[in-house]
Amino acid sequence: MSKELVFGHQKPDTDAITAAMAFSYFQNQLGYETEAVALGEPNDETKFALKTFGMKAPRVIETAANEVDKVMLVDHNEPQQSVSDIDKVTVTHLVDHHRIAGFETAQPLWATVRPYGCVSTIITELFQEKHINIPADLAGMMLSAIISDTLLLKSPTTTDHDREAVKYLARIAGVEDYEKYGIEMLKAGTNLGAKSDADIVDGDAKTFELGGKKVRIGQVNTVDLDDVFARQADLESQMQSLMDDNDYDLFLLIATNILNSDSELLVIGNPAEKVEAAFGKKLNENKRMNLPGVVSRKKQVVPPLTDAFEG
Amino acid sequence: MSKELVFGHQKPDTDAITAAMAFSYFQNQLGYETEAVALGEPNDETKFALKTFGMKAPRVIETAANEVDKVMLVDHNEPQQSVSDIDKVTVTHLVDHHRIAGFETAQPLWATVRPYGCVSTIITELFQEKHINIPADLAGMMLSAIISDTLLLKSPTTTDHDREAVKYLARIAGVEDYEKYGIEMLKAGTNLGAKSDADIVDGDAKTFELGGKKVRIGQVNTVDLDDVFARQADLESQMQSLMDDNDYDLFLLIATNILNSDSELLVIGNPAEKVEAAFGKKLNENKRMNLPGVVSRKKQVVPPLTDAFEG
Repeated sequence: MSKELVFGHQKPDTDAITAAMAFSYFQNQLGYETEAVALGEPNDETKFALKTFGMKAPRVIETAANEVDKVMLVDHNEPQQSVSDIDKVTVTHLVDHHRIAGFETAQPLWATVRPYGCVSTIITELFQEKHINIPADLAGMMLSAIISDTLLLKSPTTTDHDREAVKYLARIAGVEDYEKYGIEMLKAGTNLGAKSDADIVDGDAKTFELGGKKVRIGQVNTVDLDDVFARQADLESQMQSLMDDNDYDLFLLIATNILNSDSELLVIGNPAEKVEAAFGKKLNENKRMNLPGVVSRKKQVVPPLTDAFEG
Repeated sequence: MSKELVFGHQKPDTDAITAAMAFSYFQNQLGYETEAVALGEPNDETKFALKTFGMKAPRVIETAANEVDKVMLVDHNEPQQSVSDIDKVTVTHLVDHHRIAGFETAQPLWATVRPYGCVSTIITELFQEKHINIPADLAGMMLSAIISDTLLLKSPTTTDHDREAVKYLARIAGVEDYEKYGIEMLKAGTNLGAKSDADIVDGDAKTFELGGKKVRIGQVNTVDLDDVFARQADLESQMQSLMDDNDYDLFLLIATNILNSDSELLVIGNPAEKVEAAFGKKLNENKRMNLPGVVSRKKQVVPPLTDAFEG
């Protein structure tokens, strides 16, 4: 059996990095020879978690086929989110919690997909089913990944599986107060002073086709919304410039306060009235609206927007 | 939670019928409200198994959206193999052992895909992981499905998982000699006297695009190859007629002797020399060649043909 690489999506977040480390460890215990790698450097939040639990970031790769014939994917399945030469290798395993889109295989594979808040939760259950122990440092990373993906279990993507995995992993990792640790870790990921305007508006952005319009939606986490909107003029010119370059019709930036789970939306472009219709309130004179309790782009922003554009 | 339908592919075989029954039972134990249905009537083999274990065939449906919003798929994922209005319902669960092709979801789903010989083996492991007992009659059907898909564990698609599941299920079902039962069941499915020429050549056929040619490959199981080739002239005209109607370039019929796991290939159309190249032997004057040990179209016929056409 030849060696396989295990990796998450481009622009990796804490779960993309951790799920690769955890699934590689799991498969190696079962007798496979795998190495966890990443499609980018860890972000500030992931670095904080790695430092806390004394683990090293996986090696970053640009291509896979120069090293291996076979790969295992975690936390993504869409080819455009994967390694650049994904079409040149065989995907033998997949663990994911996203929709399935554009994912095709020539042969049957091993795939476990669950509608949970985090892939590290799915992998926790795989360890449990096979009665394989999770090392304490890896459990700390997996705990961090679930806290990251679910914003400390507050996102509406959170399931009972995620809640149970957090308790289980915190015990193994020796984290007595996971809420306290979680706030510290999330704060470490929101050092906006170190981020460029482009990082803030586009670092986590995705494009959606809604009612024939090209809508770009970015999201940035913070512990103080003022840290974001003190820079609003610069952020707006960055958004306008990206709209011009990429023919976006509309650009939304969701600034999410991770301490109280509220978001403030900044809207540039047209038709902005569709955004107002989606959330049933007007944009203020600063082109912004407050969205209390909204933290999930996937579950709380895209669906009402889709209804407003296509309903 | 509203009711969901669970079903396998069109032209259902024993696994497509049984996996729907087994996964529906499993999900109902977990608290879902589901009903196993089928996209066609059971074949002679499946009827034999249903009669042996005293179970009823699932209700046949033509469409799903008139009854439910959500469905669970077993033993297939490609839309063209599914219910006619699959695009009008949401797939919430998938259990499969085929390649992934053309399968897209709008939302994350629950999917367990394994490269095993049979979906009923995957479902056996799901029951085991959740410590849910399998009723004896259902275990008998699942045993039958594995015997059917793996030709009594002789097909190269067979894995250790299938071998273990057969032993486990035979014990629950009270089947003392599963080989003896398996031969009886497979024989019941090969009553060629009751089958039309079209059933034999095209009942289980699939189309493959190989090197720009449209190649149709059918397969029929038998306990005596003479039962097939006594009708060769009629089968050939049926194949020729299907080629004319559907613009196939080449038509292969694999007649497989389930008692000794050998096959005899009948080849009509062009380029027949690619078939000869694929298997390294000449067709005889009856347009046939013997293929000892070949039972799997997917693993032993399509790959060498693909190499010959595209290599």
